Amino acid sequence: MARKLYELLGADDRRFSPYCWRIRMALAHKGLEAEIIPCKFTDKDLFAFSGQERVPVLLDGATSVHDSWDIACYLEDTYPDGASLFGGAAGRGTARFLNEWSARFSLPLLMSILKDIHDHSHPDDREYFRTSREARFGATLEEIDARRDSYRDALDAGLATLRAVIRHQPYICGAAPAYGDYIVFGTFQWARSISPRRVLEKGDILYDWRSRMLDLYDGLGRSVNAYPE
Amino acid sequence: MARKLYELLGADDRRFSPYCWRIRMALAHKGLEAEIIPCKFTDKDLFAFSGQERVPVLLDGATSVHDSWDIACYLEDTYPDGASLFGGAAGRGTARFLNEWSARFSLPLLMSILKDIHDHSHPDDREYFRTSREARFGATLEEIDARRDSYRDALDAGLATLRAVIRHQPYICGAAPAYGDYIVFGTFQWARSISPRRVLEKGDILYDWRSRMLDLYDGLGRSVNAYPE
Repeated sequence: MARKLYELLGADDRRFSPYCWRIRMALAHKGLEAEIIPCKFTDKDLFAFSGQERVPVLLDGATSVHDSWDIACYLEDTYPDGASLFGGAAGRGTARFLNEWSARFSLPLLMSILKDIHDHSHPDDREYFRTSREARFGATLEEIDARRDSYRDALDAGLATLRAVIRHQPYICGAAPAYGDYIVFGTFQWARSISPRRVLEKGDILYDWRSRMLDLYDGLGRSVNAYPE
Repeated sequence: MARKLYELLGADDRRFSPYCWRIRMALAHKGLEAEIIPCKFTDKDLFAFSGQERVPVLLDGATSVHDSWDIACYLEDTYPDGASLFGGAAGRGTARFLNEWSARFSLPLLMSILKDIHDHSHPDDREYFRTSREARFGATLEEIDARRDSYRDALDAGLATLRAVIRHQPYICGAAPAYGDYIVFGTFQWARSISPRRVLEKGDILYDWRSRMLDLYDGLGRSVNAYPE
């Protein structure tokens, strides 16, 4: 296949990058197929052609695109005949807001499951993950894990904003899912892939939204190794 | 004129409701005129026909609509020939996210300028404002004002999200302003109308965004009594 998506691989075939999930969903939304190339953190050589060290990377024929936002825009502009990811210019602009908001929403979740990421990353990657993250955050994974409950309020504030939206409409982007939904869905897929701690419980309207997201595209979001919903 | 917008009036002709500003901008965006009916907090009788006690209220011929989001949707659906406020279904959905986010973003700002609102509300309204807000927040306006700096971190977090967007594009909704911009602009207009404390300073890209917003529609946002930009 001429189209390849390089995505992050964890232990036991887990696929936990939130950014890669955005693109998996975006490709399905547009009805585009791609060969998935799983890469460990330490497999950066596999996509060195992209000129940088992070997945997702999309290789579409001879064109290489990296950064989830840029890949989404590339897909939207290159394949205008597929379903629209943004629904037009204003929708794309506002999705950019969600992209920035989501980075900040995800941070307390990241901190509260950082050790779980380590524990579920590929065995070959664990030393790299520990060394790089402990340097970045100035604490051991165990120290960060010991204060995981301290991130709860910040996480809850973000969840409350999402709930307020889903109280009005079935998807973040309205009556039908679009890229803004995939942005946020990626964060929940990431948590579900590598942490036994549930972020969402049954009875929560966000749980119901996530179930709808998991149902999309023949259950694409359920097609991987992850903890139960 | 058959179309009337009931909006909040403060002291010295100040117009400080963030929700009313959204609709002022939305009307201008669509090229629709409306007679502005200024109402004090205690003038609820003026728009009692709406069946509720808050502005903005739009009276369009025989149709009364209240709640800024519902008014924006009404304008979009009733006047499809004017410029689109949302740019389609996905844009509208995602703007709903901004609407909910903005309510939370505005809260720390509200708390940090609550006494300023009182001081700049219409003299007839001040006792009502003090009594209702002190009951709602369980503290005197002076007690809340004394801890105004404690809301700074939460406000800064919201401003940082907005800056991250404006670093990529001139408007929150992309290359051109749309309803998402008006949602956020309302909050800044509100602060500028009633508080001498500057939320944005020159040199901040958000200040530049606000200047672009103030330039729109022949300087509509500057056509009122307010503190200097």
